[in-house]
Amino acid sequence: MKALRFVGVGLPPVVEDVPVPVPGPGEVLVRIGGAGVCHSDLHVLDHGAQGAGSKPAFTLGHENAGWVAAWGSGVQGLREGDPVAVYGYWGCGHCRACQSSMENYCENADAVPQAGGGFGLDGGMAEYMLVPSPRLLVPLGTLDPREAAPLTDAALTPYHAIKRALPLLTPDANVVVIGVGGLGHMAVQLLRVMCGSRIVAVDLDDGRLEHARQLGADLVVNSRNGAQAAETIRTFCGPRRAALVLDFVGLQPTLDLAVQLVGRNSQLTVVGVGGGVLQLSQMTLPFGCSVSTPLWGSRAELLEVIALAQYGRIHVDAHYFSIEDGPRVLQDMRAGKVHGRSVLVPGVN
Amino acid sequence: MKALRFVGVGLPPVVEDVPVPVPGPGEVLVRIGGAGVCHSDLHVLDHGAQGAGSKPAFTLGHENAGWVAAWGSGVQGLREGDPVAVYGYWGCGHCRACQSSMENYCENADAVPQAGGGFGLDGGMAEYMLVPSPRLLVPLGTLDPREAAPLTDAALTPYHAIKRALPLLTPDANVVVIGVGGLGHMAVQLLRVMCGSRIVAVDLDDGRLEHARQLGADLVVNSRNGAQAAETIRTFCGPRRAALVLDFVGLQPTLDLAVQLVGRNSQLTVVGVGGGVLQLSQMTLPFGCSVSTPLWGSRAELLEVIALAQYGRIHVDAHYFSIEDGPRVLQDMRAGKVHGRSVLVPGVN
Amino acid sequence: MKALRFVGVGLPPVVEDVPVPVPGPGEVLVRIGGAGVCHSDLHVLDHGAQGAGSKPAFTLGHENAGWVAAWGSGVQGLREGDPVAVYGYWGCGHCRACQSSMENYCENADAVPQAGGGFGLDGGMAEYMLVPSPRLLVPLGTLDPREAAPLTDAALTPYHAIKRALPLLTPDANVVVIGVGGLGHMAVQLLRVMCGSRIVAVDLDDGRLEHARQLGADLVVNSRNGAQAAETIRTFCGPRRAALVLDFVGLQPTLDLAVQLVGRNSQLTVVGVGGGVLQLSQMTLPFGCSVSTPLWGSRAELLEVIALAQYGRIHVDAHYFSIEDGPRVLQDMRAGKVHGRSVLVPGVN
Amino acid sequence: MKALRFVGVGLPPVVEDVPVPVPGPGEVLVRIGGAGVCHSDLHVLDHGAQGAGSKPAFTLGHENAGWVAAWGSGVQGLREGDPVAVYGYWGCGHCRACQSSMENYCENADAVPQAGGGFGLDGGMAEYMLVPSPRLLVPLGTLDPREAAPLTDAALTPYHAIKRALPLLTPDANVVVIGVGGLGHMAVQLLRVMCGSRIVAVDLDDGRLEHARQLGADLVVNSRNGAQAAETIRTFCGPRRAALVLDFVGLQPTLDLAVQLVGRNSQLTVVGVGGGVLQLSQMTLPFGCSVSTPLWGSRAELLEVIALAQYGRIHVDAHYFSIEDGPRVLQDMRAGKVHGRSVLVPGVN
Repeated sequence: MKALRFVGVGLPPVVEDVPVPVPGPGEVLVRIGGAGVCHSDLHVLDHGAQGAGSKPAFTLGHENAGWVAAWGSGVQGLREGDPVAVYGYWGCGHCRACQSSMENYCENADAVPQAGGGFGLDGGMAEYMLVPSPRLLVPLGTLDPREAAPLTDAALTPYHAIKRALPLLTPDANVVVIGVGGLGHMAVQLLRVMCGSRIVAVDLDDGRLEHARQLGADLVVNSRNGAQAAETIRTFCGPRRAALVLDFVGLQPTLDLAVQLVGRNSQLTVVGVGGGVLQLSQMTLPFGCSVSTPLWGSRAELLEVIALAQYGRIHVDAHYFSIEDGPRVLQDMRAGKVHGRSVLVPGVN
Repeated sequence: MKALRFVGVGLPPVVEDVPVPVPGPGEVLVRIGGAGVCHSDLHVLDHGAQGAGSKPAFTLGHENAGWVAAWGSGVQGLREGDPVAVYGYWGCGHCRACQSSMENYCENADAVPQAGGGFGLDGGMAEYMLVPSPRLLVPLGTLDPREAAPLTDAALTPYHAIKRALPLLTPDANVVVIGVGGLGHMAVQLLRVMCGSRIVAVDLDDGRLEHARQLGADLVVNSRNGAQAAETIRTFCGPRRAALVLDFVGLQPTLDLAVQLVGRNSQLTVVGVGGGVLQLSQMTLPFGCSVSTPLWGSRAELLEVIALAQYGRIHVDAHYFSIEDGPRVLQDMRAGKVHGRSVLVPGVN
Repeated sequence: MKALRFVGVGLPPVVEDVPVPVPGPGEVLVRIGGAGVCHSDLHVLDHGAQGAGSKPAFTLGHENAGWVAAWGSGVQGLREGDPVAVYGYWGCGHCRACQSSMENYCENADAVPQAGGGFGLDGGMAEYMLVPSPRLLVPLGTLDPREAAPLTDAALTPYHAIKRALPLLTPDANVVVIGVGGLGHMAVQLLRVMCGSRIVAVDLDDGRLEHARQLGADLVVNSRNGAQAAETIRTFCGPRRAALVLDFVGLQPTLDLAVQLVGRNSQLTVVGVGGGVLQLSQMTLPFGCSVSTPLWGSRAELLEVIALAQYGRIHVDAHYFSIEDGPRVLQDMRAGKVHGRSVLVPGVN
Repeated sequence: MKALRFVGVGLPPVVEDVPVPVPGPGEVLVRIGGAGVCHSDLHVLDHGAQGAGSKPAFTLGHENAGWVAAWGSGVQGLREGDPVAVYGYWGCGHCRACQSSMENYCENADAVPQAGGGFGLDGGMAEYMLVPSPRLLVPLGTLDPREAAPLTDAALTPYHAIKRALPLLTPDANVVVIGVGGLGHMAVQLLRVMCGSRIVAVDLDDGRLEHARQLGADLVVNSRNGAQAAETIRTFCGPRRAALVLDFVGLQPTLDLAVQLVGRNSQLTVVGVGGGVLQLSQMTLPFGCSVSTPLWGSRAELLEVIALAQYGRIHVDAHYFSIEDGPRVLQDMRAGKVHGRSVLVPGVN
């Protein structure tokens, strides 16, 4: 089968013919319907996969959905053709976090170092993909696997970040979303469904801001002038400021802006891996404000995200390409030329 | 000033001229913008007010909003003309529940028996109303007091009932609202804003059901055939059934229906005072299902409800009448002829 | 191997020789260290197992711990001899509740009807026991499986009931435990470790009450005179009454007592299957009080219970018997002659 | 009356004779039973009070308890001689945070800048103290005001920090307390009462560590060798590390230690104002770990702390001095010569 492969740090990805894998005991083979292309793929290409168990070459793709194709002994309850999303972060499966479906916070992450398919093991940018356990599959119901694929990361990650703050997101509270691109524009949609708080969207691109407004943002602010943006948002929010600031960029200017917007007893959540550093002390942050850098989401949260898409409450702006298009799509993404979410679909031309 | 008065158990309400009250130390005088008419007013007329501190005759009206008019010594931070909603349940003010703004669960309810203005003390169906403490006032911002008045009960009560269950209301969960009249149609709107769960609306009136659908219900079911309604809803919800059933009617048939719809580890919340009785044992309810009869809401929750209305996320279908219209409006309500929420407005003709 | 078997409704249990089971794909064989004897075993003997998948005859025992002995294909991460507790309620394993480790609230309980080993499938009153998935095993660390066995139910069940109410159990709150026998005396210990609330223990047996006092109860009350007991407890608790009442008996008199003790916004949790019925309406319960009948506990909660025992914070008063003693131990339990928890230990004489 | 006064930045405190204040409308006069001495008093002496409403000279003391002595008009429900603790952080009283008793996170902190008595307004190191509202008083029941005074800060602050993390503090979790002096030794006691987690105490003083062990710490570690201490604690905690690290010191070495101890999805709470700075980015902290610098506690939490002391579950190691001793006690504190908590008691010689 055709597969888009990582073949070495710093090398471009390569489309190769590889054998269709055969599921061993406990494993499931998924026929891929779609595999989303993500900025993390560029990170893998540039830096390789970190885990001790990583293979020197592997198939890319960690945002996957498709249909159950086959399974090994010891697997029960599946039917061939069941449409499923693949939960992307593969923990040890038995620690307390994994028991509670939060594999993203697996306690044995150091001992089970590869994070999952596409991160050192074979991922989903291929016709078939091996999943190590049926616990990592989420049923899609009536949802098309091509649409579902990007949900497993581009929607799950902001969903998890929002859910951590949900008790704070009362209707009299304000939320600021910094960066309304791939993940951020999903965050605006998710916030509009999950709570009654007022939403402020911040970006440098007026087109994205207009899109955020259509998706439900109550205020959109271009941050090309940071000081003015802070002032505008603080006036809008009033003395209470923001109960939650989600930074999907993570550069120094966005972190510096975020710190000016959070209120007392709030949350500042940094999702974007932009390399900014927050100098945290009693002098730099309002009292009681919690800063964190969450990771992806839990299996149960993926069930919830899938439900939102299935019932039409959220929508990914997806564009479909073939496996062979993969190298070019990644190149375009690096060049900032990609809008919405690109999904590789086996068999598409 | 003109006031609509309770003058004795079983007697019709009377419009009387009473003196404008003068605020004593710690008290606030509110000029009334609107006073909502509620089924509880009929209950007061028929049965009187229960509290030991109740007066033999008093002004009706417990859904009140208006403008700050004057205050006694010891009151700080108010300005004349500030638009405010009046929080309706008046607790002791110093127990743990009241400290946390949950006066509706005041621990000293037996010792402070009158529940508030319109329930044994003078309420808001008059030109002015005395409020015992500024802690019971919620600022309205840009919201018109006439619109705000019914929110203090008809929106606050379902809001509180929903908020108690909010952690259960994930996007893959189902909520059933039984009775989509005054409070129930607010519940549908509130649910649509507060969570991504699927909403099922149940009623005997097809017009109300159509309205519920427009407000965001995903399924509407007429329960004139109870067994069929249960079957339809259980099919819609799947094996998980409902995470929350809100019964705004509380008659035996609605309780019996509710019991068939709740799932394991769910909530069954009875708001309607219909006189039905639930025979609760390990045999009658799914394991882990919690049944409760909440009361009204907290001061902090009223802040949240006011925010929802101010930002246009919920809307009360209000109709305005004069104080003098009060007796007729109450008569119409008893006859089931009232649609939406009636609000008495001083000075209106 | 020797096994204590259910052989028909209403028949006494029989010690039989049965083959040692062989684990199929995905399954684990556990060598039993201990199997606790529970009142539910009498219920099974008298009424049989309810599930459609139940076998006509099966080995009893649902409180099990031992050592990993063997496993089928597709099972990973186990080592022979690992000491483990067996989580007793076996759900579908893939619904949202099961994904979050709450198999006790499995959404597919109707479709997966046998609740687990000892409830229609072979349980642990034998030398070996088959467990359908490694997800149902909890590592014991340094804890002796004989001690751990009764924790899986006699400690897990009250632990879960308490944990549902934990946000209410502040140091200024009161908890009432009705019935301080097998589960109730664990509840007192658990409460003393898990929160700073005041604990009231209620029973008809003065010896048990004295034991409860030693375990940390702040007040012990004999309820032979129900009205007086209610009065004593209400005086102790003050106007706030109890934030949580745990009824481990569930007879009509204990339910009637419980209703008099709960405060507003509290929880009344009925664990004991005594056949009492609570007539629930707005007139019978304080506003906001939630009544529920929880079931057992989750896998994650079993991890927590095991930790408490391993670190010496809770202790089961266990007595050890052989498999052959089983019929007599069950007879004694029926006669009310058992104190503490009886545990069957293979190979003991 | 005698009072210990702040008279200027950098000047030593002075015992002066000042008039007994007279409560105006809404105010309460408290006869002081005890006023705790705190490191924050040194901060006030060195830097002055920050708020715009601060007086140039004022009575020190923000940990106060005593008896209700008199009140102005508009105050209800008090009796002369009622023993009360004074909640120390005085917010606006009407924002959402204050409505919910969390005045420590008052949204109008910038507009109501003086934090309370002893911080720019007259505090409790005197015979009498004026409290601006009865909402700031917590009844003491049978507790001696002298014992209660230090609870209002030295116990309330760690209590709040712990309570924010309580859902994480399951019995299988680990908590690390860095610095077991004034606040830290209260934290160990509070943790032992509030949860079943394992407690690790860290300090440079072996005497304090031994005390922490007696109060319930499961492991005590001297951190004079930071790398070794980190290693010892990580081995004790296992791969999950700590669910909560409380840093009551806040120096760079303690922050650096804390960062090595927290696990994924944990909390790092910095209470000590030691001037350390945490360089927060995705590279420096485990995923999902929340860092915050909480402030003091809420009114409702003070009720809970008072309950713990009243029922004998926590104990402050207090030493009593006269108002005249105040300057010397503060000098000793600055020199690090104070053990336990010093309390100034009017009338003591």
